[in-house]
Amino acid sequence: MSVSQSFATSLSSSSSAFFVSSNFISSGYGVQNVPFPAKSIGVVKCVAAPQEQETVFKTKVPRNSNMAKLQAGYLFPEIARRRNAHLLKYPDAKVISLGIGDTTEPIPEVITSAMAQKSLGLSTREGYSGYGAEQGEKPLRAAIASTFYGNFGIEEDDIFISDGAKCDISRLQVVFGSNVTMAVQDPSYPAYVDSSVIMGQTGQFQKDVEKYATIEYMRCTAENGFFPDLSTVGRTDIIFFCSPNNPTGSAATREQLTQLVQFAKKNGSIIVYDSAYALYMSDDNPRSIFEIPGAKEVAIETSSYSKYAGFTGVRLGWTVVPKQLLFSDGFPVAKDFNRIVCTCFNGASNIAQAGALACLSPEGLKAMYEVIGFYKENTDIIVDTFNSLGFKVYGGKNAPYVWVHFPGQSSWDVFSEILERTHVVTTPGSGFGPGGEGFIRVSAFGHRENILEACRRFKQLYK
Amino acid sequence: MSVSQSFATSLSSSSSAFFVSSNFISSGYGVQNVPFPAKSIGVVKCVAAPQEQETVFKTKVPRNSNMAKLQAGYLFPEIARRRNAHLLKYPDAKVISLGIGDTTEPIPEVITSAMAQKSLGLSTREGYSGYGAEQGEKPLRAAIASTFYGNFGIEEDDIFISDGAKCDISRLQVVFGSNVTMAVQDPSYPAYVDSSVIMGQTGQFQKDVEKYATIEYMRCTAENGFFPDLSTVGRTDIIFFCSPNNPTGSAATREQLTQLVQFAKKNGSIIVYDSAYALYMSDDNPRSIFEIPGAKEVAIETSSYSKYAGFTGVRLGWTVVPKQLLFSDGFPVAKDFNRIVCTCFNGASNIAQAGALACLSPEGLKAMYEVIGFYKENTDIIVDTFNSLGFKVYGGKNAPYVWVHFPGQSSWDVFSEILERTHVVTTPGSGFGPGGEGFIRVSAFGHRENILEACRRFKQLYK
Repeated sequence: MSVSQSFATSLSSSSSAFFVSSNFISSGYGVQNVPFPAKSIGVVKCVAAPQEQETVFKTKVPRNSNMAKLQAGYLFPEIARRRNAHLLKYPDAKVISLGIGDTTEPIPEVITSAMAQKSLGLSTREGYSGYGAEQGEKPLRAAIASTFYGNFGIEEDDIFISDGAKCDISRLQVVFGSNVTMAVQDPSYPAYVDSSVIMGQTGQFQKDVEKYATIEYMRCTAENGFFPDLSTVGRTDIIFFCSPNNPTGSAATREQLTQLVQFAKKNGSIIVYDSAYALYMSDDNPRSIFEIPGAKEVAIETSSYSKYAGFTGVRLGWTVVPKQLLFSDGFPVAKDFNRIVCTCFNGASNIAQAGALACLSPEGLKAMYEVIGFYKENTDIIVDTFNSLGFKVYGGKNAPYVWVHFPGQSSWDVFSEILERTHVVTTPGSGFGPGGEGFIRVSAFGHRENILEACRRFKQLYK
Repeated sequence: MSVSQSFATSLSSSSSAFFVSSNFISSGYGVQNVPFPAKSIGVVKCVAAPQEQETVFKTKVPRNSNMAKLQAGYLFPEIARRRNAHLLKYPDAKVISLGIGDTTEPIPEVITSAMAQKSLGLSTREGYSGYGAEQGEKPLRAAIASTFYGNFGIEEDDIFISDGAKCDISRLQVVFGSNVTMAVQDPSYPAYVDSSVIMGQTGQFQKDVEKYATIEYMRCTAENGFFPDLSTVGRTDIIFFCSPNNPTGSAATREQLTQLVQFAKKNGSIIVYDSAYALYMSDDNPRSIFEIPGAKEVAIETSSYSKYAGFTGVRLGWTVVPKQLLFSDGFPVAKDFNRIVCTCFNGASNIAQAGALACLSPEGLKAMYEVIGFYKENTDIIVDTFNSLGFKVYGGKNAPYVWVHFPGQSSWDVFSEILERTHVVTTPGSGFGPGGEGFIRVSAFGHRENILEACRRFKQLYK
C-alpha cells in the first residue's frame, strides 16, 4: 500500500462525514496539530518493503493558522458522522433524524412548477438567461422588500439575494476582515463563531472555558429568559444575534430588541441579525430587526427560504444591508458587501430564484405557511412529550426547535444515550457553545409518523 | 431631501451597475478614501433649512483596510455599467454584447428536462431532498472524476461540487489566509488578484506600475507565446494559472505545463489551475493539470459548467483538491478546504446538480459539445474578421476569446471607441492586468446573427 493509497483510504468518504473520521476527531487535529504524515508513514512502514523508502512531498506553503484554531469538524457533519456510525452498528435500526434541522416535507407544487418552468425555459431562446445580476433578480429583490419589510423603510436595493444565510454569514465576515471583535449569543448557531475564527478575529480556543479568546459570549439561560444581560456584555464591533434563536428556540421581544439596538448604537456596533426562523413565531414579537426604530443604522439582517419553503437543498437566502449603515469612516457597509458579492459570488441559481419568487405569490405564501404550520404541530407534539415526562422544556413556541434541559448531564452523553437507546438523532446543546451544556436540541422537522414514533421512544426511555 | 434620502438616490440601482456609479469610480473611493458623508452633507446643505442640522450616524466599526485597497469596482459590473450608460445615451441602438463572456445559446433539453424533473420531484415525498452533502452529490462527484480525470488518478472524493469556479477561488483564498504570497498570469481573470487583495495577501496598489505590491505578475505576451518566462518569476506560495487563458485565449502545451509543475515543485508552491475553458481546445494540449506527472502534489484545479453547458445563470462548478497536496506541516489542503466548504457553504443547488449529472450522460456530453462547437464557429468568424482587417489577433483557437492587439493605444480608449461607433461591447485588456494594455478581448458568446452583425460593424469601423 503506497502512501497515496493510504491517504486515499483514510480520507475517502463521500457523505457529510467526509474528512471527519472518528480518528480525526479523537486525535485532536487542529488542537494539538499532530503532523499528518507522521502517522501515515507509520502505517506505510508496516506494509511497505524496506527498500521502498517512500517520501511524502510537502509544499512549502504554511497552513493558515486560523484554520488550525478550529476545534474538530463543523458541528453538523459531525452529527452526520455519528449517525452513519450508528447505522453501521445497527444496520436494521429505524433511525429517526431530529438532529441537523433538515426539512422533510415536499415543496408545494406552486413553487416547484415555477422552477420546472424556468428550467425548461432555459432550453428556449426566449427563456434562456445567462449571468444575472450578482445581487439577484430585480423582481425577487422587490418582492422580498415589500413582503417582509414593506413598512420598515427597507428598499429593493438593500436586499442581496444569496445561496443561503450560512454562505452570507461568511461573506459578511470577509467584508469585516480580521481586525474586528465579535459577540455572539451563547448558545448559538456555530457558523458565527467558526467563520469568525477562520477570518482571524479571535484568539486560540481556551479549553478550560470552551471559548475562543476575544469572542464575547453573551450567555442566554433560562434564568435570563434567553436574552443576555447587556449590562455585563463588553463592547464589540460585531454582534451576531439570532431570533428566534437556534438552538434555544427563544424569540426576543420588542422591548429586548429595542434594548439591543440601543446597546449597539451606544457602542457603535453592527448587529448581524439572523431571522431565518421568523415565520415560525407564534408570539407577537418583531419578525425583523428593522421593526425597531434606528435599526437601519446599526443592523444587517440575514434570512433564508430553507426553513420556510423547504429550500435546504435548493439553496436560496437573502441579506439586507441598509444603505444607512456606515463604517466608522462613513463608508457604506453595503458598498463593501456589494463588492464581495460581485467578486466572490456570482448570484444564486436562476432556477432557485424563480422558485423564491413563486413563494411570494399569494398561493405561494399560503402554501409556505401551511408547511410551516405542519412543522409547528410537530413542535407541539415534541414539547408535550417532554413536558409529560417532567423535563424542563424551552423553545418550541416560536421556533421549530425544542430545547430540553438535562441538568448536570453532558450534552454529548445525553445525545449518545438517546441515539443508542432510541435510534433518534438529536443535537447536543454544547455543540452550540458552552452555554448549551446540559441541553439537547430536538428539531421538529420530520414526517409526522416519525415525530410520533420518536416521541413514543422518548416516552419509553424516560418513563 | 434628508441625508438618508440622498444616500438612497445616490446608491439606488438594481442592475450589476449597483454601487459602481461613474462618480464612485472617478472620485476614487478606496484609492483616496474620500470620506463618504462629507460629500453627501455637502449636497444636503444646499437643500436643507439651516435649522435642520442633520447628523449622520456612523458606527465605530473600522472599515476593512484590505477592502479599501481595491481599485474601483470589479471589472465586469463596470463593463455592465458602461453598457447601460451607452443604452441611455442611444436608446435606439442595437447594442451587441461581446464583453463579459456570457453564454447566449439555449441549454440542450436533455439537461433542462433533468432539472425540471428534479424540481417537480421535490414536490413528492419520494423525490424530496433537503440538505445534501456539502461537497456535492456522490454520483455527480463520481461522474466528474471519471469523465474528466479518468486516467489521472483523481478520485471521487477529490472532487468538490460548487456554485461556480469564481466562488471556489474565493473559498480557496479563505483557506490560504493572509500570510501567503501569490503569483498570477498578467493578464488574467481579475478574480484571482481581487480575492487576494480582499484576503490581505497583498500590499497597496501602486499606481505607477498598476500592480498591487507583493503580487508576482507573470507577464504573458505575444513574444513569449503567452507563457511566462519562469526563470524571471520569483517564488510565491500560490500560483494562479488559467489555461486556456482568459483573456488571451492561449493554451499552455504539455511541455509548458510540465515546466510549471516542476517550477512549483522546486519552490514548494501550490498551483491553482483554472481549466474553465478546457473543452474549447482544438490543439492537443492537456485538458487538465493532472495530466502532468506529479501535479497532484502541487496543484488544485477549478472548473465550471458555465461555458460548457450554458450554466452561467444556473451556477455549477467544481474544484479538485487531491488528497496528496500537503501544506508545509504535512496537513492536507483538502481537509482545510473541506472545512471551509462545510462552514462557509452548504453545497450547490440540488437542481443544478441534477442538470450537471445529465450533462455527463452520453446524450448530455454530445449536446454540450455541439453548443461548444457552435461558439467555436463564432470564434473563427471573429478571428477571420480581425485578421482580414490587418490586426494581430491571438487566442480563439483554443478558447472562446479573441485577443486583438491595438499597439500603442489605451484599452479603455479602444473599448470606448468601439462602443461609441459600433454599439458593440468588448472588454478592455487592461482590465485583466497591466499586461493587457493595448489589447481588447472579444468574446465569442453570442447568437450567430449578432456575431455576424458585430463583425460587419468592425469591418465598417476599421476598413
